[in-house]
Formats: sequence, structure tokens, C-alpha cells
Amino acid sequence: MLDVCLLGSGGMMPLPDRFLTSMLFRTNGRMLLIDCGEATQITAKMLGWGFKKIDIICITHLHADHISGLPGFLLAIGNSGRKENLTMIGPKGLKNAYKGLSVIFPELPFEIDFIELELDEQNNTSETINIGDFYIKAMYMEHKIPCLSYSIALERAGKFCVDKAKALDIPKTFWGSLQKGNNIIYNDKTYTPDMVLGESRKGLKVCYCTDSRPVERMHSFIKDADLFVCEGMYGEEEKKDSAIEKKHMIFSEAANMAKEGNVNQLWLTHFSPALTNPDDFIENATKIFKNTIVGYDRLYKTLFFED
Amino acid sequence: MLDVCLLGSGGMMPLPDRFLTSMLFRTNGRMLLIDCGEATQITAKMLGWGFKKIDIICITHLHADHISGLPGFLLAIGNSGRKENLTMIGPKGLKNAYKGLSVIFPELPFEIDFIELELDEQNNTSETINIGDFYIKAMYMEHKIPCLSYSIALERAGKFCVDKAKALDIPKTFWGSLQKGNNIIYNDKTYTPDMVLGESRKGLKVCYCTDSRPVERMHSFIKDADLFVCEGMYGEEEKKDSAIEKKHMIFSEAANMAKEGNVNQLWLTHFSPALTNPDDFIENATKIFKNTIVGYDRLYKTLFFED
Repeated sequence: MLDVCLLGSGGMMPLPDRFLTSMLFRTNGRMLLIDCGEATQITAKMLGWGFKKIDIICITHLHADHISGLPGFLLAIGNSGRKENLTMIGPKGLKNAYKGLSVIFPELPFEIDFIELELDEQNNTSETINIGDFYIKAMYMEHKIPCLSYSIALERAGKFCVDKAKALDIPKTFWGSLQKGNNIIYNDKTYTPDMVLGESRKGLKVCYCTDSRPVERMHSFIKDADLFVCEGMYGEEEKKDSAIEKKHMIFSEAANMAKEGNVNQLWLTHFSPALTNPDDFIENATKIFKNTIVGYDRLYKTLFFED
Repeated sequence: MLDVCLLGSGGMMPLPDRFLTSMLFRTNGRMLLIDCGEATQITAKMLGWGFKKIDIICITHLHADHISGLPGFLLAIGNSGRKENLTMIGPKGLKNAYKGLSVIFPELPFEIDFIELELDEQNNTSETINIGDFYIKAMYMEHKIPCLSYSIALERAGKFCVDKAKALDIPKTFWGSLQKGNNIIYNDKTYTPDMVLGESRKGLKVCYCTDSRPVERMHSFIKDADLFVCEGMYGEEEKKDSAIEKKHMIFSEAANMAKEGNVNQLWLTHFSPALTNPDDFIENATKIFKNTIVGYDRLYKTLFFED
């Protein structure tokens, strides 16, 4: 089970009725945040999932509207009583940006482990990073400065096979722990999860893409995602030239990516401040990809494993 | 005439229903901002005075809740089309903090002139800085890091004396311009405002003080101010120990300063996030200084010159 919440749906600047685009993921009580523009801590407070259990912050790129909320957000995490390390993932330069921002806040009560991904057009997809239950992968996009898309996945182990466990004489008291993925050593014997589990089953996958032009390699990156959250800076077809110039997308381009990637659902976000009512243009997306939702602040969904 | 607006009334962190303390001043269409915490641009947008004509930004100190909104706010000023230089005033280290923050935003379409005030307990009050119609003075306060209070004043010229103008044979066509404070050279003669104006009259003065313990030198600094905006981190008398430890004030301490300074009105602000309903404690201030208002976001007033 994976809870996802679009904390904000705005691009460029926060508005009185629209926070900047960022997204919070929660599974088994632990959380991951993507992007942290100015005032993200406010919409996160409105949501009410708390700050203490945010283990990972992924940053797409180092433009202010995606990172300027970090000082306040990290202080909020500090005030929540967190002492555990936190991992911050982002493009090359992330640590330097953090260092710049940190001139205005004192030491935090937790350490930050930085993972800077040096991706470019040649080497455009990262290895999978596993932290807690989250499997994180990044892809280099096409924006004015280096920008990453993220895929956040949960894996799902195979079904527990009672017959296998019995055939191997595994004590019943270990079954639960093995099912949860733990190894057990007992009386010099080692029991591993694969001894009792069937083939692994389909997990969950959510992809998040902003700011970028559409790129073809994204189709395989988002392949079969349960949810694809994608920027749609402009709704109008005639704004395509602006989108090309400013390295953003129009709704129909996002919908095309969703279609090519065969995702289950598309959420549009990162609307231009000039796009007062994005719903007016939803048909530009739905005529290409039917299962499109025009994002709004704190749009929320729980994704469940199949069957 | 001076419009003043308390853009936010919160301390430490912005809340869903309370922005961080900052204040906007407007006279003759030109503006001055004091402090710029995270999301100040949002409450400024709610107010609707625009961004383009903000000529001066004064920063009290370099803690995140007073400065972390600068990147977004400066970008908003840039987006408004401003090309004129802007002046930024603050404590020593301001330029370095700006440099740190500027890693996340590109070049602005205007230049910034920095004025760093090196004040301490020995040298605790600045010279008056005059920019446009604003007369700005700063005083060093007592906080965990160097922190400034500001006095923002408007001067008021004397009344126009028709008799003086006539006695000096000053052409009527120059009267208006001289009254506005301009010098005029015509036919090798120089006409100056003092030739036609009476003694200067009482102007307007607003003082802004946060974050600090109360200090005695403040009494003369705020003397006879039309409005004194002062932090009241805690309403409860029994929180005085916390206030001492964290270098803040309780309501009654702010009220005492207002009384000693003989100001006209006191606005309390910079409430602790734990102070859900500051109004509950107003009597702790009003029993010392009657004309106290518990600040709230976008509390607004127009101050007029006397008579």
C-alpha cells in the first residue's frame, strides 16, 4: 500500500490558492518527499502526515521553485524531534545548493546523507537506490538546467508457500519473519525468504516528471506505472512554442507520454501562474490519454497491490 | 500619508493560517519591506500592492524565518518588470547570506545595493538613511545573533507661506514645485524651498522590533512613534523564563516598551506557533499599555499627518 499526495500543483511561484508542485509518498508510516519549493512546509502541515518520518528528500533540479522551501522544511523536520539521518537525492550541485541555503539556519538535529546523481544525455538513468521500502530511480530530462525525473517503486514479495516451508521443515515460528523478508540463523542453519516465498509479484510504481520537454527515453522509464505525475505548464495547444522555448510541456505532450508509457493514470501539475483554471483544458489531455486528472493541492490517493 | 500592513504575524515557522512576520510600508506609491520569511510573497500577493515599486528591503537578522522568502520574493519583483536598483539593508553578513541563497535563482533583472550595518552594543544606533521619502534608522537589539530594530519615518515640510513667497517676488509658477521640496534655478536666480516654507512639521514614525529581549535604549529609539510593531512571542506571563532563554518577549514586556516610549499604538506580532489564540492574552498588554492591538495577517492602517 502506498499513499501519495500532490502537496502543490503550481509552477514558478506559489499563489494564494496554489502551492508549488511537490509530492509526498508514504508507506508503512515512512515517507519520501519529491521537491520542496517555498511554502511546501505549509501545505504539508495542512495535509497533516507529520515531518518526523520523512526519510528521503528527492530534488528534481536546483531552481528556486523546487528547492527554496528546504530551509524551513528541514527546520520543521528538526522541530518534529527527528534525530535519524535523512537522505537527500538530487542532481550534481545539490550539496553546494544546500550549503548556500544553510547560511540562514543553524545546525540541524540530524545528519543528511547526500546522493548526487551525475546524469546527462549519455548516462541518463541512475541505478536503483533502495532506502527502506522505497526503490528510487532517476532519469535525466531536458530542461534549462540538469533536471531529474523520479520513479518511486515498492516491491512485492511472492506469496508464502506453506508446502515449501513444510517440505524444508522450517519451524512455524519463523514463517512470519521469513515472509517479511528477513534471514534467520538458528541452530547453525540459515533460513532465507526465498525458501518459503513464490515468485515476486507486481509491486507499485509512481513516476514524477517536472520540469522538462517530453523525451522519448521517458516512455520506458515510466512503463506501466500505476501513476504518472507530469508537468503541464500550459493547457493551450497554441502555447507549444512557449513550452519549447521555456523547456516545459503542454497538456497534450504529457498525455502523449502517459499513452506511450502505458501508465494507469496521469496527474497533471506545475501549472503556469497564468493558467487560472487548468480544468478548462483537460480535453487536450483526455482525448489522447483518457485517465487524466488535473492535479490540485493535496490531491491524494492510496495505491493498493493487485488482488 | 503612510500605508502600513503587517503581512504576517507568526514567529519561527509559517502556519496554514499564519504567515511569518513581515511588514510593508507604502507612501506615494513607493514601498519598503521589512523582513522576508518563507511565503512572504504569498501574503503580499493576497494584499495586492504589487512588487514592482518595492525600493527597499530591510532585514532584521539572518534567521531563516526572517529571510528565507528572499529568493522567491526577489524573483516576484523581477517578474513584475522592475529594472531599477533595489536597496537591501541589514546586519553584517547580509550580503553573504544573499550570496548563499542566490545559488538557487538565476540573475535578477535589477541590481541590489547592499547596506550592511555593523552595529553592536557599543555602537548601537545607525545614522539615518534616506531613500526616496523614507527615513530609515536601525538599532542593535539583544537576540541570539545580531538583530536590528527599524524606525521608518516620513518627514513633513513646513506650511507654504504665501507672504514669504510674495515678499521675495518668487514667480507663482514655481510655488508648487518649491512646496514639493525642489530647488529651482531661473534667470540666474536660485529659489529654494526654505524661502517659501515655514518650520517643518511633525512627520510620521513607525518602529518595528523583532526578535529581541526588551532593551532600555529602545525607549528613546521608539520615542513618540505613531505605531510600534513589536514581537510578543508568548502571551502568558509565566512564559517569561522561556522568553529570557530564547531571547524573545512576552506581551507585557512589549507593552512596557510601548509605554516607556510613549508611542501612540502598539501592534503585537511574531507569535509562537504554540500560541494558537493570542487574543486570549491581550489583557497582559492592555493593562500596561491600553492602545494595543493583537496583530493578524494583513492588518492594515493608513497613518495621516496631523491636522
